[in-house]
Amino acid sequence: TIMAALLEQYRKRIQTELDRVVDFWMKYSHDEQYGGFFTCIGKDGKIYDELKYVWLQGRQVWMYCRLYRTVERFHRPEVLEAAKSGGAFLQRFARVQSSDGPGKCAFCLTRDGRAVKVQRTIFSECFYVMAMDELARVTGNEAMQADAESMMDQLVHWVRVDSSGLGRPQMPGDPPVNSMAVPMMLLCLVDQLTEGREKQAQKYRELGDWCVKQILQHVQRNDKAILENVSMDGKEIPGCQGRLQNPGHALEAGWFLLKYAKAQDDTKLQTLAVEMFMDVPFHTGWDKQHGGLFYFLDADGHCPTQLEWNMKLWWPHCEALISYLMAYSYLKEPALLDRFKQVYDYTFSHFPDEEHGEWFGYLSRQGEVVLDFKGGPFKGFFHVPRCLYMCEKMLDHLLATSKS
Amino acid sequence: TIMAALLEQYRKRIQTELDRVVDFWMKYSHDEQYGGFFTCIGKDGKIYDELKYVWLQGRQVWMYCRLYRTVERFHRPEVLEAAKSGGAFLQRFARVQSSDGPGKCAFCLTRDGRAVKVQRTIFSECFYVMAMDELARVTGNEAMQADAESMMDQLVHWVRVDSSGLGRPQMPGDPPVNSMAVPMMLLCLVDQLTEGREKQAQKYRELGDWCVKQILQHVQRNDKAILENVSMDGKEIPGCQGRLQNPGHALEAGWFLLKYAKAQDDTKLQTLAVEMFMDVPFHTGWDKQHGGLFYFLDADGHCPTQLEWNMKLWWPHCEALISYLMAYSYLKEPALLDRFKQVYDYTFSHFPDEEHGEWFGYLSRQGEVVLDFKGGPFKGFFHVPRCLYMCEKMLDHLLATSKS
Repeated sequence: TIMAALLEQYRKRIQTELDRVVDFWMKYSHDEQYGGFFTCIGKDGKIYDELKYVWLQGRQVWMYCRLYRTVERFHRPEVLEAAKSGGAFLQRFARVQSSDGPGKCAFCLTRDGRAVKVQRTIFSECFYVMAMDELARVTGNEAMQADAESMMDQLVHWVRVDSSGLGRPQMPGDPPVNSMAVPMMLLCLVDQLTEGREKQAQKYRELGDWCVKQILQHVQRNDKAILENVSMDGKEIPGCQGRLQNPGHALEAGWFLLKYAKAQDDTKLQTLAVEMFMDVPFHTGWDKQHGGLFYFLDADGHCPTQLEWNMKLWWPHCEALISYLMAYSYLKEPALLDRFKQVYDYTFSHFPDEEHGEWFGYLSRQGEVVLDFKGGPFKGFFHVPRCLYMCEKMLDHLLATSKS
Repeated sequence: TIMAALLEQYRKRIQTELDRVVDFWMKYSHDEQYGGFFTCIGKDGKIYDELKYVWLQGRQVWMYCRLYRTVERFHRPEVLEAAKSGGAFLQRFARVQSSDGPGKCAFCLTRDGRAVKVQRTIFSECFYVMAMDELARVTGNEAMQADAESMMDQLVHWVRVDSSGLGRPQMPGDPPVNSMAVPMMLLCLVDQLTEGREKQAQKYRELGDWCVKQILQHVQRNDKAILENVSMDGKEIPGCQGRLQNPGHALEAGWFLLKYAKAQDDTKLQTLAVEMFMDVPFHTGWDKQHGGLFYFLDADGHCPTQLEWNMKLWWPHCEALISYLMAYSYLKEPALLDRFKQVYDYTFSHFPDEEHGEWFGYLSRQGEVVLDFKGGPFKGFFHVPRCLYMCEKMLDHLLATSKS
């Protein structure tokens, strides 16, 4: 059928891209001397800075393991070895001894593992958990799984009980907010830690439901906007912070919610995920003039104060691809596949680097490459391969079921 | 003469712009209810966020006072009243009581003065000193001058003796660096505190010389580059941080140095200021394709990791205008006036908003307005009026002396 041919065409391109992306990082990012991964990599593979960003170390370990564990052609010793090297580097160096409390991980390390910077947020620790849990699954190392779970307990404590261990002083003019990234990350970790484990599924069930509730608080303005930051009781907050929209982030939350809804067989949540976290950010976030998703928008149409607001970044497009293909896989509505096609056409005609492989990350509003590196402080081996990996899996499944 | 006609034309336009800019902030930024100034102001004067950024409060107080004190047409009670209101707001609310040590000022306050954020740097405090000293000069308030000087002592202590009061934990992989902003700001404050005061001139003489020495450490690579960050002993440091260039910042340092050199009658420093801090950043920083100064560059030609690296911001152009006109005033070399003309033509054809007055701050590489607000977290009543004010003064002087 025409449909099957189209899906097959997507799968082919996506599979080729995934191979190229894996090759790029396998070839250029491994630090044979100190272990772990270089993350600042130029367009041609050259290392332009030796700093090692902890988010990206953790994500790369996770991605290698996931590919090794679930994709036959990546079940190769060198993939596992690379993941182990990254995991050992993280276990040895990521945690810092500081006044910021036990368990804090650095944000950035020198090549040989000395802490450069510690963020007063939870994200380095989140990616540490992801890495260690997935590595434990691949290696069968129970101590490592316990390490991941104990860090997870610490994270939940910081988020739900007492955040003082993060080291961020509470300011009288800055009450705590519900920032969408926090429940999103925790929901992602719940998914990670519970996959195929009944005991953990029970342990984290209440947390998963809590995360969903926290994420849904970001649906605001009579279901017309997803706002990045709301008050702790789910109300819009004043000023730029309260009006901030990040369409790519909302779309990412969309597939987290959809996956959770599917696992829980929650059709109401499934509908919310698609209508609120896929349709709304697309309508507000797609640039009708030049194509692509804006990075930030203001819900009242003011100009965002983030200098990069109108740039087209790789990761929102990756997350959108996952979202629409997952929604189509579950619901089979043709409009969802059309949406996937629209994002796919923009993404594959703008981001991949035909010459050296891997993707550019940062385009101008008009779609020109503005920053030409392949890896940087916030771009590593994660959004691109996760998107390609998940889309390939979903297309495999769609093609297999459509044939039967 | 043709030359005088040209200078007269510049003066006229600059004077008109200054009037429009002052009008804009007098009309839209004053908070009659809580005192101080709104700093987040849209292109048409609308307040889009009520947060009050402390750098910008301090700078606006300073600028109003300076205009009131030294420009006849701004010696008006409403200018003084606005400055006093801002000063009172700062004195009442800027300092925070926190574990970050005595004297720390907030970076950002709510409309009614509650601290939102504290930076672990010295800059809020620097602009507090500038504001209070200039306000003390206008009002004759000696206690206020003492307040400024005691904050200055605290700043010098943080920078030269012990930085622990800033609250930034020392990380093993992040040794202290000489960041150009720090000696630049202190040199600017030395200039402020010593103007017309013999006793202070003596007190701060050694500090001024120290600042100059620290700034000159940023001349690197056989006089071919000004680097933003060097080691404490004046060597290039590895990685992106070490290779970072900020042409507008170097140009601003240029006129700080030139002014200091003139006051000290130091011709060697004068030559260094022009050749190293005006010629070098222009050659590296001017965009030969689209015109204007890049925001950031990497000394080895790698792509900077700052997403805004290729944008054209208002303030580097303001600082370049001051630099070249000051250098021309002192040295009378026609090439310096040509350079001024080149920056002037770009600046006045791109930044001013003919419709609502004031200047846009953030253009794409191609010169289109990307963020259209007039005031934001880092753009207030400072670089534009200081540039116009200083250029008007310098043109007045040039015209007066060329006629005589």
